Amino acid sequence: MLERIRIVLIGTSHPGNIGGTARAMQNMGLGDLALVAPRCEPLTADTISRASGADTLVHRSRQVATLEEAVADCTLVVGASARSRTLPWPMIAPRELGSRLPLELADSAARVALVFGREDSGLTNAELQRCHAHVHIPTNPDFSSLNLAAAVQVLAYECRLAWLDHEQGGSATPPDDSQGQPLATHEELEHYFAHLERTLIAIEFHDPAMPRQLMARLRRLTLRSRPERMELNILRGILSATEKVAANRSAQGSPDAGDDAAS
Amino acid sequence: MLERIRIVLIGTSHPGNIGGTARAMQNMGLGDLALVAPRCEPLTADTISRASGADTLVHRSRQVATLEEAVADCTLVVGASARSRTLPWPMIAPRELGSRLPLELADSAARVALVFGREDSGLTNAELQRCHAHVHIPTNPDFSSLNLAAAVQVLAYECRLAWLDHEQGGSATPPDDSQGQPLATHEELEHYFAHLERTLIAIEFHDPAMPRQLMARLRRLTLRSRPERMELNILRGILSATEKVAANRSAQGSPDAGDDAAS
Repeated sequence: MLERIRIVLIGTSHPGNIGGTARAMQNMGLGDLALVAPRCEPLTADTISRASGADTLVHRSRQVATLEEAVADCTLVVGASARSRTLPWPMIAPRELGSRLPLELADSAARVALVFGREDSGLTNAELQRCHAHVHIPTNPDFSSLNLAAAVQVLAYECRLAWLDHEQGGSATPPDDSQGQPLATHEELEHYFAHLERTLIAIEFHDPAMPRQLMARLRRLTLRSRPERMELNILRGILSATEKVAANRSAQGSPDAGDDAAS
Repeated sequence: MLERIRIVLIGTSHPGNIGGTARAMQNMGLGDLALVAPRCEPLTADTISRASGADTLVHRSRQVATLEEAVADCTLVVGASARSRTLPWPMIAPRELGSRLPLELADSAARVALVFGREDSGLTNAELQRCHAHVHIPTNPDFSSLNLAAAVQVLAYECRLAWLDHEQGGSATPPDDSQGQPLATHEELEHYFAHLERTLIAIEFHDPAMPRQLMARLRRLTLRSRPERMELNILRGILSATEKVAANRSAQGSPDAGDDAAS
């Protein structure tokens, strides 16, 4: 189970934090590290010193340019977030995250990504909106910014506890919405969102120049339901049928035809 | 409660770890730090850098020569220990430690000390034997040595969770995905499903004579996400826009117009 949990660091500035993250991961039995557009050289003397023997994880880590690439194959993407943003997202506590993992990772193709943002500014709204849920480590409200490696340490610790619990026949949360069907991957979801946006533009419901958080709201709603691959196929079928209708109209339509059909 | 938990570091060698400890403590709402015979200058540039604003805790910390002095007034002394020693001691898990704290600290004169040893060699047997109990953070047996500040982070986190649990008279888990917005009622959902079905028929995606469980699948997906009223309004807006496009097409279409677009 633990080998299918990926730690994703975005835009890290301090090599020491990458080393500290590697050490925290290896201490807790995690091994899959991805670095998205690091803002520093990942492997320095500082990295090696803080990693204290776990720098092999940094050597083996995948370096990619975007969050997309880092989590494309993941079935659950959880972003570490200090606070709720303008558009609140499903929020889980670290312990709850842990208790969900055995079930989330029951299928051997399942992959979970835990995503951590920049030391100075965390995750962007766009990044947060690519996550199924946000995890918030409870902190002192007057001094809430955790060191990056410390945040990884806390979540990795919860992962290990959940795994130990599970291995020892302890509690996994009762099945909530898993229906035993393969869930859509992050990449499939992103293709769907792109298709959805094109379609909403085609039917003139959505104007990218006036986005009004529309796509963010639809993302939140969709991600909350954890769509299965098959469900996503149905939704994409609906989008294709809608696009076809819209294309027919524009092929034939005079600008004001059918205005009286508006409801 | 948290103000009566003391973190005691014995023989620390790296100022950075003292800074990291201060930051971890303040993040979790702890403020009482004692340094026993540090093997380094506690306040250096490294301390301040790793403390990231929490160096006031180091300024305020008490520096003493022996463990005795550091914990004299404590009613419970718990030593962090990587492994059981020759003489097995009462061993508790970090979570169990947390769950004991509210009771241990119920009396306002009570004080708890969490004692951490040297980076290279931990606590001596003599020191461990001065503790009421030992706490062991579960780790990967092949790579078990946690960074000192990371170990403090994990235990401080458990202290905070226990305190939140206690304060809130229940769970420290934030409410799951309630975003404080009114959820759609059953009736609103049923209106939505009826609207959805009409629209899917209009775009010729759905044939009620050949239902293929389509509506059932869409219901299940939608209900799983527990839509808010406002989200449902967006979805209905999309349906209306789609219907408009479909009506335009049929208003204009010759009987076979767009046959080539039929699926």
